[in-house]
Amino acid sequence: MFRSILNIGLSFLLTCSILAQSVPNGDKSLMGFSPENSIRQKTLEQKFDASLRRENLREWLKKMSARPHHVGSPYDKENAEFMLSLLKSWGYNAQIEQFDVLFPTPKTRVLEMLAPEKFTAKLSEPAVKEDSTSNQSSEQLPVYNAYSIDGDVTAPLVYVNYGIPADYEELERNGVDVRGKIVIARYGGSWRGIKPKVAAEHGAIGCLIYSDPRNDGFFQGDVYPKGAWRNENGAQRGSVADMPTFPGDPLTPNIGATKNAKRLDRKNAPTITKIPVMPISYGDALPLLRNLEGAVVPESWRGALPITYHFGGTEATKVHLKLAFNWDIKTIYNVIAKMKGSERPDEWIIRGNHHDAWVNGADDPLSGQVAMLEEARGIGELVKTGWKPKRTIVYCAWDGEEPGLLGSTEWAETHADELKNKAAVYINSDSNGRGFLGVGGSHTLEKFVNEVSRDVIDPQTKISVGERWRATQLVNGSPNSKKEARERTDLRIGALGSGSDYTPFLQHLGIASLNLGYGGEDGGGSYHSVYDSFDHYTRFGDPNFDYGIALAQTAGRMTLRLANADVLPFEFTNFADTVGVYVKEIMTLADTMREETKQMNQMISDGTLKAAQDPKETFVMPKPKSDVPFLNFAPLQNALAKLQESAKNYQKATKNKSATSQKSLDEILMKTERALANQKGLPRRDWFKHQIYAPGFYTGYGVKTLPAVREAIEQRDWKEAGEQISIVAKTIENFALEIDKATQLIR
Amino acid sequence: MFRSILNIGLSFLLTCSILAQSVPNGDKSLMGFSPENSIRQKTLEQKFDASLRRENLREWLKKMSARPHHVGSPYDKENAEFMLSLLKSWGYNAQIEQFDVLFPTPKTRVLEMLAPEKFTAKLSEPAVKEDSTSNQSSEQLPVYNAYSIDGDVTAPLVYVNYGIPADYEELERNGVDVRGKIVIARYGGSWRGIKPKVAAEHGAIGCLIYSDPRNDGFFQGDVYPKGAWRNENGAQRGSVADMPTFPGDPLTPNIGATKNAKRLDRKNAPTITKIPVMPISYGDALPLLRNLEGAVVPESWRGALPITYHFGGTEATKVHLKLAFNWDIKTIYNVIAKMKGSERPDEWIIRGNHHDAWVNGADDPLSGQVAMLEEARGIGELVKTGWKPKRTIVYCAWDGEEPGLLGSTEWAETHADELKNKAAVYINSDSNGRGFLGVGGSHTLEKFVNEVSRDVIDPQTKISVGERWRATQLVNGSPNSKKEARERTDLRIGALGSGSDYTPFLQHLGIASLNLGYGGEDGGGSYHSVYDSFDHYTRFGDPNFDYGIALAQTAGRMTLRLANADVLPFEFTNFADTVGVYVKEIMTLADTMREETKQMNQMISDGTLKAAQDPKETFVMPKPKSDVPFLNFAPLQNALAKLQESAKNYQKATKNKSATSQKSLDEILMKTERALANQKGLPRRDWFKHQIYAPGFYTGYGVKTLPAVREAIEQRDWKEAGEQISIVAKTIENFALEIDKATQLIR
Repeated sequence: MFRSILNIGLSFLLTCSILAQSVPNGDKSLMGFSPENSIRQKTLEQKFDASLRRENLREWLKKMSARPHHVGSPYDKENAEFMLSLLKSWGYNAQIEQFDVLFPTPKTRVLEMLAPEKFTAKLSEPAVKEDSTSNQSSEQLPVYNAYSIDGDVTAPLVYVNYGIPADYEELERNGVDVRGKIVIARYGGSWRGIKPKVAAEHGAIGCLIYSDPRNDGFFQGDVYPKGAWRNENGAQRGSVADMPTFPGDPLTPNIGATKNAKRLDRKNAPTITKIPVMPISYGDALPLLRNLEGAVVPESWRGALPITYHFGGTEATKVHLKLAFNWDIKTIYNVIAKMKGSERPDEWIIRGNHHDAWVNGADDPLSGQVAMLEEARGIGELVKTGWKPKRTIVYCAWDGEEPGLLGSTEWAETHADELKNKAAVYINSDSNGRGFLGVGGSHTLEKFVNEVSRDVIDPQTKISVGERWRATQLVNGSPNSKKEARERTDLRIGALGSGSDYTPFLQHLGIASLNLGYGGEDGGGSYHSVYDSFDHYTRFGDPNFDYGIALAQTAGRMTLRLANADVLPFEFTNFADTVGVYVKEIMTLADTMREETKQMNQMISDGTLKAAQDPKETFVMPKPKSDVPFLNFAPLQNALAKLQESAKNYQKATKNKSATSQKSLDEILMKTERALANQKGLPRRDWFKHQIYAPGFYTGYGVKTLPAVREAIEQRDWKEAGEQISIVAKTIENFALEIDKATQLIR
Repeated sequence: MFRSILNIGLSFLLTCSILAQSVPNGDKSLMGFSPENSIRQKTLEQKFDASLRRENLREWLKKMSARPHHVGSPYDKENAEFMLSLLKSWGYNAQIEQFDVLFPTPKTRVLEMLAPEKFTAKLSEPAVKEDSTSNQSSEQLPVYNAYSIDGDVTAPLVYVNYGIPADYEELERNGVDVRGKIVIARYGGSWRGIKPKVAAEHGAIGCLIYSDPRNDGFFQGDVYPKGAWRNENGAQRGSVADMPTFPGDPLTPNIGATKNAKRLDRKNAPTITKIPVMPISYGDALPLLRNLEGAVVPESWRGALPITYHFGGTEATKVHLKLAFNWDIKTIYNVIAKMKGSERPDEWIIRGNHHDAWVNGADDPLSGQVAMLEEARGIGELVKTGWKPKRTIVYCAWDGEEPGLLGSTEWAETHADELKNKAAVYINSDSNGRGFLGVGGSHTLEKFVNEVSRDVIDPQTKISVGERWRATQLVNGSPNSKKEARERTDLRIGALGSGSDYTPFLQHLGIASLNLGYGGEDGGGSYHSVYDSFDHYTRFGDPNFDYGIALAQTAGRMTLRLANADVLPFEFTNFADTVGVYVKEIMTLADTMREETKQMNQMISDGTLKAAQDPKETFVMPKPKSDVPFLNFAPLQNALAKLQESAKNYQKATKNKSATSQKSLDEILMKTERALANQKGLPRRDWFKHQIYAPGFYTGYGVKTLPAVREAIEQRDWKEAGEQISIVAKTIENFALEIDKATQLIR
């Protein structure tokens, strides 16, 4: 669903790993393994690598992307059944688990400009002869945004840039009001569902979202079919449900959408949009945008269409948007396949990727899905040779990710109690392509990720994927990333916001999670369009499936190590270091806001702000803001100090000794992340429990770390900020106590 | 010729000005004036302000822009004669001073694409009905670059972004070679003459320069005639002579181009380009650029045309460029008008603006020229009431600025000895428009500029123009500008590179100079096109001539104060502070280059740089560079310390005492800037004598401060850097000794 190269941790200088003991020849053991078991494990991984076959990826990708396979389509179910049969044939205890979810599809879609120019939007992606599946119009879902409400509105049009809160501040300063109007926002700058949400908050009555060629079209590269990039007819389908409130079926928050589950009335479902919203191509957007009047927008708002971008909003432009949907309940099909653990069957290593797509979905999600299948097959092969994982491995092919993480969320909600007891780690993947490893996730696994990244060879350069990622950080990173790549033992992995199926595991249940994939050298532009096809992917994505194999090697290695380790390879000093960064960030945030508020209020009151404006342009003076008080960050600072202490003690304890009972230690370690989840959840969105990572309420994909505190500060709610500091501090302290318990078991 | 808003110094907190004595009521005297004379002067300035008439500006602008008036045209001479008669009528001792200069005009201009598409460039700017002078095709100079050599070349085309040295490094990394090819560069990023110079250095055989709509077209705002901005047919004429080597007539470096001057053979004239070069519109550029092949260019290279920008350079594209010129000697007409000083006639305050244009030139240069005329008239009015300036005022309307500062340079070279003796200050203006004051110049006048800016009222906001400029620095400035605007008593004025007629005075003769104008709220896009007309200017430039009056008030006030002060209002602590900034900058430059070189060499040798590249794209590994040695900056640091000391001593001395002889003090002060000029000149371009300010050899307009040292470091010539540090240090020490002499006269 969500393509982005996350930060990744890796290490060439890895000096000491927890629970690793020096072996006589100076080699390091793998994290969590004894020297002897390390050697055994490495041999196993070599066998695993050798068993992987790129032809399988190609064959499965071709087959599974042969027809559209969105939720509710016949081919969606067929794909699930195909995978089920494969997984069963490889020795897994596999089954399909169904849920019944609300899934709207379009009945009526009309977009026309009435004035000053007559124009009716095409709203279609034509077949191109170079793309053999692009002509399957009878099965293709048309271009639309899922969970838009029905609506029929006619109003002036306003260009709102990305449509995020800061853009509305700019509109306000320019005297542009969106009340009673239809807004047109470009994709990017936030998750798409933020755009209609913020538009509605400001009184807009309709919302269009288009792909500007600056972000996603000819500005980036040659367009399809000549090149990989989005052409003038390509449009981006996608969900606009308010997922930062809760993901999953809009009618069954917190519970599984089983056949007889108690459902909300659709009219009361809080995550369905408040205004109608539809995505369009830049071909359809051009006639609308070139007719807008009003002032010229700021430079950072301007896209790559060959026009002067204006705010619009004047009565001279009239746009008519009419949308109606079939509000059906559809069945989704998760494929769940278990390989039972030999020693600790109640410790689960869960590995997932979704299989549903918006159309043919060769890249999103099948490129990740087929790599995961091959990984599962490889592990099945190992099992056939007599080997067994210590812990249970669970492969999950999720349905309904695209409309809103439906399959994973409903499954996680249904099995919440069991998962809280048994889940050790969840590893997610999604789209995959040629390029660099990207990893985000729980920083308790950062050192482990770094270790694995050293052991996978990049197919193009023959150095390790870790080394290659470090190289791109050193060459292309931000100044801070460059510095860390030079100086820090491990490279820092990214924090997870949302956009794929890790969210229910990490942020709802508190299960340590990772999300990984390769990319950065593959061509974009097919995302959520009919052109996300086998033909496109094998020209621009990962033509030889080299990186499909690399993904299988990486995630497979993670799965195998986590499943086989003597003790789960969690490590806490890197986590403490990263939390330290976050604490520093929010303290700096408050200080910066205080200084900026002071300066801005001063410039408002002394006339400086006004004097710097062009008197011939509209400028609405902003109101002074209340001063930013000094907040008591001491509870967080004390909790951080405690965390650092506990992390260090655990590291020291595990350096040369082992736990008396590895199983007891595991039981503590696998639940440490649970301590980071607060059962009361975040303010105003209690589905989200994790106190360190959450998708931003106004960013959607983008993570907010220490979200309760950070968002309270951003929203200038000083009282709430103070309250949440205490709650987060207490959470971190409890987490540190869990580490202490683990340390106790070793001494 | 050159439009840009320079930094400007100003002050609200001005606490002590040199030679200013407290008057009993706490008011401050004007810099250089006794309290009594300050009061008299302020009264004079009020009378001056009251005499200014905006109708004159409108009338003169209309008249003088009524026909094309480039060098060699009948109307160029008519305008000179018109101004002569005006200046005479206002009581000036005025005359026209002629020079005979090389001025090529086009005979043949052909640009066509031969493959893969046939296309012949239009190379013309059509008349538009909203612009009454745009149809004067019989008198318009066609679109061309003056001082391009003749040429007839056919070759593949390569896009080189701005065509500056860093762009060729990027081309090289991408394996794109321009040898034997024609380059197409976009305007911007440097002065235009740099583009063919650097292209030829890299082996290109032809050069096109086009106006990309990103920088100068619809991306910026609505295009003409709907809005102010350049339309698809607008093209930018302009000189491409190698002016960073020397400006003025290419055949008479260092000497005046008088009738019988010894001239270089044109074949040996070093400032004529090495390859043919022509400017084109974005309408003409589009078919060329959209046919380029090769890799997609980096993001920062991409313009606003609706295409994917590629490097090109492949054999598939063939372009034919044929240019031939009439290489005529033409007469130029400077108007020089003197108002003799009553007390110190041999101290000259020189005020200049050019009058020649590329076509009708309403904005460039007449907007500044008519303000200067009104200023001269106002001073003439004052003289008619019996007042006389203490010092001589010289008004200069330069011809031939556009082709290469011809009028000012030839005049300055002809009268070099007299000017070195008599010139105290040169004040330049050029295009002028609605908006904020911008000032650049000698920092010995920075405090004076700050003082004047407090005394001129902004016509739109009714606060001082200084206050308004401070406001825009505080609101829109860089972080450093904001900080200085908050904390520094005076705002820092910009350093002068080149691009208008101050260059021969400041950088060749060492005369303290200022360049000023208003702008930032006027619409661009007519620059050097047929659309730079009265109609365009009165819609988008300065419709009511409010800022023409403001310029007359500002430059007139400067002229009047400089002409009337008891002692010339030079001040040296601000200058020392600014030189301190420059010294710190070049030391940081060397440190940064050392660190970057080390890191890059490391990344080349250890494979990091290669590992971060996409193996499917061409990447030519750069060669390691030699290490950056530690340079001995001590001579500069010691000279700076001495300068700071001398500046402080002069400030202290002038605080409460006056010079025994104001005239003797003046004689030292007016020549202090001369001490900053080294008669040997800069390495490889000895016409440029000033050791603090010069146009960059590879930037053209953009200033290089401490140029001899800075450019040696930039070019990695460590030996020259060391040598030039000593020379510049000695120059600064000599300057400090001049200040000491002035201080002696006061004690």
